Amino acid sequence: MKISELCRRADVAATTLKYYIREGLVAEGLRSAPNRTDYDEDHVHRIRLVRALIETGGLSIASARHVLAVIDAEGTDLAFAFEAIQNALGATGRAGERSASTKAQERVMALVNGSGWAVTPGNPGIELAARALDGLSTIGFTPSDEFLAGYATACLGIAQADLGALTTRDSPELVLELMVVGTVMGDVLMSGLRRLAQESTAATVFPVSGRNSNEKREQ
Amino acid sequence: MKISELCRRADVAATTLKYYIREGLVAEGLRSAPNRTDYDEDHVHRIRLVRALIETGGLSIASARHVLAVIDAEGTDLAFAFEAIQNALGATGRAGERSASTKAQERVMALVNGSGWAVTPGNPGIELAARALDGLSTIGFTPSDEFLAGYATACLGIAQADLGALTTRDSPELVLELMVVGTVMGDVLMSGLRRLAQESTAATVFPVSGRNSNEKREQ
Repeated sequence: MKISELCRRADVAATTLKYYIREGLVAEGLRSAPNRTDYDEDHVHRIRLVRALIETGGLSIASARHVLAVIDAEGTDLAFAFEAIQNALGATGRAGERSASTKAQERVMALVNGSGWAVTPGNPGIELAARALDGLSTIGFTPSDEFLAGYATACLGIAQADLGALTTRDSPELVLELMVVGTVMGDVLMSGLRRLAQESTAATVFPVSGRNSNEKREQ
Repeated sequence: MKISELCRRADVAATTLKYYIREGLVAEGLRSAPNRTDYDEDHVHRIRLVRALIETGGLSIASARHVLAVIDAEGTDLAFAFEAIQNALGATGRAGERSASTKAQERVMALVNGSGWAVTPGNPGIELAARALDGLSTIGFTPSDEFLAGYATACLGIAQADLGALTTRDSPELVLELMVVGTVMGDVLMSGLRRLAQESTAATVFPVSGRNSNEKREQ
């Protein structure tokens, strides 16, 4: 197909596509005549994956290039690709710049081991979760074991839903695409549903009353 | 106490404290002599809460002022304060600027109703979750009902852990502080534990083998 059709199919501007090609993220097309370059379905999938990494995942060009290199080198070894994607996305963590305290990291590992999870020491989730514990400790809140176990059980349920979704995708490219977009969008979905579940649960924990609110406003 | 002790107790720089006072987020101290202003425990708690809103929650001065006004007006009506905090934090949502499609919002509401949750239409979780569904649909992925139910069940478990933690705090100020910091840090904790649970679960879904990886690298 011509570049105009490729841009339409992959929903990308021609200038953006040329930038991706120049940066080595997308392969050049096949020059079939002096004024004509041909592209195929592989280009469509690749551009969608690059957009997922950069636009959805917020990765830098350098990070995206790193993830794509792993994917290209490993072919269909999806577990390895998943790890590379997690590591690259982990570097964009939202919990500030400082690294977590050793104490918090140890508490996370105790939770991981207590949950019977097999994880590698480089998993960025350790740092993310430990930073959250440090953030909570700044207001003097140390989560109970029960609190952390509740989170761990819930996150295992979400991970199982995530992995189940990956198995519904027909090709390795589609699986990789969902690994990236699902990792980012799954976090947003969780945040949203957590707020909805909190409101529903809060009504049972804190008694709400329109009358009380009005009385208090008048005090 | 003097301002120097207050700054030490609340772990805040004097210039920052003076800025908070000038912006009306923290009350002025009591002028006990021409060259002396006194502060009390209420100031310590208030500054910690302001820091939680701005530094942890990433709220603007205007948003923080709005949340504090609700808290001050409502006194100890914690459910109402929780809603105000959720709304203010929701405005800083991480899923881009565009608002979600009607179709995605409807799917979220169907999930909420199917889960038997009581939520108000203004809950920012609806928008957040719907944006995530829109994000997933850009790569042609429409989550199954089973996938969404897995997320909803997990998020209900997390909300129950969150609300349980709030009930362990001794005063309304401490509860409010945890509402803010817990909402933000809980999201980070979930992200981290999700990545750890994903790695552990992935090993059972995608067969990993060091030998295979090496063979592929050599191709």
